[in-house]
Amino acid sequence: MNTREKLARRQKAVNNPLCIGLDTEPERIPACLQAQGIQDAELMATFNLAIIQATHDYCSAYKINTAFYEQYGSEGFRALEQTLAAIPSDIVVILDAKRGDIGNTSRAYSRAAFEHFGADAVTVAPYMGWDSLEPFLAYRERMVFILALTSNKSSADFQQLDIGGKPLYHHVVETARSWASAEQVGFVVGATHPLELQKLRAIAPDNVFLIPGIGAQGGDVQTTVKANQGKPAIFTVSRAIVYASGTENFADAARAAAQQYSFSLQDFLSFTG
Amino acid sequence: MNTREKLARRQKAVNNPLCIGLDTEPERIPACLQAQGIQDAELMATFNLAIIQATHDYCSAYKINTAFYEQYGSEGFRALEQTLAAIPSDIVVILDAKRGDIGNTSRAYSRAAFEHFGADAVTVAPYMGWDSLEPFLAYRERMVFILALTSNKSSADFQQLDIGGKPLYHHVVETARSWASAEQVGFVVGATHPLELQKLRAIAPDNVFLIPGIGAQGGDVQTTVKANQGKPAIFTVSRAIVYASGTENFADAARAAAQQYSFSLQDFLSFTG
Repeated sequence: MNTREKLARRQKAVNNPLCIGLDTEPERIPACLQAQGIQDAELMATFNLAIIQATHDYCSAYKINTAFYEQYGSEGFRALEQTLAAIPSDIVVILDAKRGDIGNTSRAYSRAAFEHFGADAVTVAPYMGWDSLEPFLAYRERMVFILALTSNKSSADFQQLDIGGKPLYHHVVETARSWASAEQVGFVVGATHPLELQKLRAIAPDNVFLIPGIGAQGGDVQTTVKANQGKPAIFTVSRAIVYASGTENFADAARAAAQQYSFSLQDFLSFTG
Repeated sequence: MNTREKLARRQKAVNNPLCIGLDTEPERIPACLQAQGIQDAELMATFNLAIIQATHDYCSAYKINTAFYEQYGSEGFRALEQTLAAIPSDIVVILDAKRGDIGNTSRAYSRAAFEHFGADAVTVAPYMGWDSLEPFLAYRERMVFILALTSNKSSADFQQLDIGGKPLYHHVVETARSWASAEQVGFVVGATHPLELQKLRAIAPDNVFLIPGIGAQGGDVQTTVKANQGKPAIFTVSRAIVYASGTENFADAARAAAQQYSFSLQDFLSFTG
């Protein structure tokens, strides 16, 4: 079963497209865990395991941003390995790494994501072009999510530059669609740009969109789901779920927040048909 | 002493701008080391330590691409940590990570590069714009090398798209120059594009260029040095030095290759005077 099928099956099983972002920052981990005196990286793994245990019934995917683990080097990567091992095998794992490099280097990154960490999908940066992403696409059963229009303000700096009447990110989407089928290629499109998201669905109706930016970054569920027009998508909520509470009940609070987001996504999805 | 000063001091001390890329792939490590039966990641560290020991007299910087270490997860990062610890403190360390993400995530990446790994400089991808690089630039004593025109063939896909009469990578260079001074901002420009390199020097005369692609990728020393017109630069040679020989004499061969590249760079630098 390839990643795209696994995703569809899981979204159907839990009846929602919620992805939880495990953007774990040690300084935001509840004091009750901190008090146990364990080190930052170990603390991240402990926290993640509790969050996964509490929330996995309500999501179809987990998105893990490598940055938070990398800042602790080898110990951080060990926490990442422990976290990945705790995710139930029927849930899609997206390694949010935004990698991109040339030839033999890109092959090493794709081995890291798909073989060592065993991710189902990985996010990649498009700037270096086709040959920088080809090694990832060589894993025919997995998916890559290419950065198109990101949720940050400075996405305007380059992504929205006009090239012959179209913004750069349109070129990225159109070009990358020619590289591999929608079974393999998806795009990252921030929830903070609902109008642009809506327009992009016209040129990429069958690709899965990975849509971050709901919750802490300001993206609204209803607006985002409407803009997506019922097309294949993964809606990511990170901080608004994992840091739902800073008390001893943090895991229950995360569970409740995950449940709530999953219900709103269900509501609006059935609304958009 | 900031990174730029450290670089200038070391380039003067060894009288050359050679940077050695530690692009270590276990399968290319000489059989004599392989035979000792140690694991891939440990093997990488053992090999790197021998290469650093043999070559450090002839270079002003080492460039380490994180991809090769990441493919072995936490063990690979341990090899990276061991490698970094073995580099003499007066040599500039460039972490070739090509990172780029938003807000809190980018802060974590900058902490990884500058605090955990203690690099003097890091390579970053520009696609996400200013706020994705600001956390790196907040380390005022360090340098970032922003991907401009990379050495691979597919750099044509997006980097060379025409935007109002100028290619995208020109916009990247011009825009990024407004973000911070040339003490902090440098650019990656592949040796495989000598004509474009020459033109870029006109719009970025004072920024340090990190120039990979000499050697295995086909870039020629003389052509590249001429195109750079004596401006501040770091010339990177990777595979042509570290894999100079696959025999037991691999370290001596790497030393001889480093010496040879350092001499050619000196010759042509004085020629372009």
